[in-house]
Amino acid sequence: MDNDIILLAHGSGGELSHELVERLFLRHFDNPILAQLEDAATVPFSRFTLHASRASARLAFTTDSYVVSPIFFPGGDIGKLAVCGTVNDLAMSGATPLYLSAGFILEEGLELVELERVVASMATTARAASVQIVTGDTKVVDRGSADRLFINTAGIGVVPEGVELGSDRVRDGDVVLLSGTLGDHGMTIMSQREGLRFDSPLQSDCAPLQGLVAAMLQAAPQGLRCLRDPTRGGLATTLNEIATRSGVGIEIEEAAIPVRDAVRAACELLGLDPLYVANEGKLVAFASPEAADSLLAAMRSHPYGREATVIGQVRAEHGGRVVLRTPLGARRILDMLVGDQLPRIC
Amino acid sequence: MDNDIILLAHGSGGELSHELVERLFLRHFDNPILAQLEDAATVPFSRFTLHASRASARLAFTTDSYVVSPIFFPGGDIGKLAVCGTVNDLAMSGATPLYLSAGFILEEGLELVELERVVASMATTARAASVQIVTGDTKVVDRGSADRLFINTAGIGVVPEGVELGSDRVRDGDVVLLSGTLGDHGMTIMSQREGLRFDSPLQSDCAPLQGLVAAMLQAAPQGLRCLRDPTRGGLATTLNEIATRSGVGIEIEEAAIPVRDAVRAACELLGLDPLYVANEGKLVAFASPEAADSLLAAMRSHPYGREATVIGQVRAEHGGRVVLRTPLGARRILDMLVGDQLPRIC
Repeated sequence: MDNDIILLAHGSGGELSHELVERLFLRHFDNPILAQLEDAATVPFSRFTLHASRASARLAFTTDSYVVSPIFFPGGDIGKLAVCGTVNDLAMSGATPLYLSAGFILEEGLELVELERVVASMATTARAASVQIVTGDTKVVDRGSADRLFINTAGIGVVPEGVELGSDRVRDGDVVLLSGTLGDHGMTIMSQREGLRFDSPLQSDCAPLQGLVAAMLQAAPQGLRCLRDPTRGGLATTLNEIATRSGVGIEIEEAAIPVRDAVRAACELLGLDPLYVANEGKLVAFASPEAADSLLAAMRSHPYGREATVIGQVRAEHGGRVVLRTPLGARRILDMLVGDQLPRIC
Repeated sequence: MDNDIILLAHGSGGELSHELVERLFLRHFDNPILAQLEDAATVPFSRFTLHASRASARLAFTTDSYVVSPIFFPGGDIGKLAVCGTVNDLAMSGATPLYLSAGFILEEGLELVELERVVASMATTARAASVQIVTGDTKVVDRGSADRLFINTAGIGVVPEGVELGSDRVRDGDVVLLSGTLGDHGMTIMSQREGLRFDSPLQSDCAPLQGLVAAMLQAAPQGLRCLRDPTRGGLATTLNEIATRSGVGIEIEEAAIPVRDAVRAACELLGLDPLYVANEGKLVAFASPEAADSLLAAMRSHPYGREATVIGQVRAEHGGRVVLRTPLGARRILDMLVGDQLPRIC
């Protein structure tokens, strides 16, 4: 393109906007639905009915904005995050993610090569997650009115007939499974911002989890009750949300929770608790006791669940609260995140 | 709520985030789908099939981010704009708008009363447009990293069976209809920013157009070929997009285009052409010659189409170009917007 930085005119709707769409977005997000460039993308119903008969299937719809700083980090970037985060929110509802929208807010002066790197990363991640980016929008704000680049993605998917996941389905005695280590994403961002270096480098766990969820639904279609990805606020906050909404208590074993050495070291240095740190490629699952073993086996067979493990159990007697059992056997209540541990982590 | 400004902790995912969701968003956007607060909203397919049998109906999906400055202006605010803009993009595809997502990027320090005013306006507009806001997200960035408040909305709707609109359906001889005056939104924002005052005050035309489109589809289901809302870049840019994609030429009559006196005065003062100024409650329609009269009558019977008028015709001999016929009978080519006329207009 003729310019090497983003100008206000790129957001005007005029010629430079069209150039950006055609030479950047259409090229990377290449698909026939986006290429129609109508005000709204239209997709045939039959695309959905391949996945679901009409009787009880449902449509899933979600959105997230991404404001992570820095926009490039070990293990990912804001574009990969924007695709994974929305794909994962759909997957947690049991949906097969299908279509994404992408809304960009660009700061005047952003380097076009940086934008292209982000867009290319979104395209690669979308292919890995088997979704298509079918509609989008770009706005440009004057220098100082945004910090380089914010992205919103919304996503739609189909929840197959018979799949019913949700915090209201969690029952006393259910087993709590975690797909891998905690804190990798949050501590990677934090260490980048603080300029910390460790012997074994930190890397974000940012990953699309729709394949892991599909494997779990196949292994135990009935025994899986609820899925969540512990992003902002970390595992502790996610478990508190589920405990509050389901009305049951949750007890987890501190010693069972996997945390990488480098993440633990970074947490200690910064005075943070890995239970409250954001993850972007992990899920927590609630399963019936009968289904737990086959679910765990299915998770461990998947690249994004190799370190999956049982971390606790639903216990009615803790009614609505999350209780942490320490390695020494003491029990303490694990609250929701209070205050602001890590701004602009996602 | 305990605080009267937005803090970074409102975006942490923790307790203050939950307070914001429950006391502000859930209260105003009140609906049972949002209230489930799962990672993705799920809606039953039957809700869609009420509107459309499965055979040829399609789902419409669109997104826009809103960065308008100032966030409150005569005739609307960023929240009303965020609902209308996305509802209108769905309506232009012939879809019945159904569900919206709302993603907020808030600057630390934003007054909560301002946010509440915007959220209440979104709720009112959503009711007027017969859509539900079913899923959302809030991020907070540090002071100076955004300008108060940006909103992204994505929307889904259903295109009823038999409705086929698009720039590829435009044919030689089609009549071009405009639903009302040009330039009201853009010149309102611009005058606010420049501190201009006029005898008859300017007001944004920001309005949800799904009702007007429904009336038009009912009046002439077959004769309506293509709908567009001339937002950023104005009517001239919208017509150029259609001419380019359809390959046909468009001739419009300058004298036929309605512009309010105050808008014309503001345009003259600022050296702007109303044909390039953004509108947020207007549409341009392409209709078969046989359907034009009944469409025009249907438009004029609707509150948002009272000043509808015929402004031109599709003329194959202008192949791919937009031609303006001046009051004196001269013809000149009307180009797409070049450069940046009005930043942060929507």
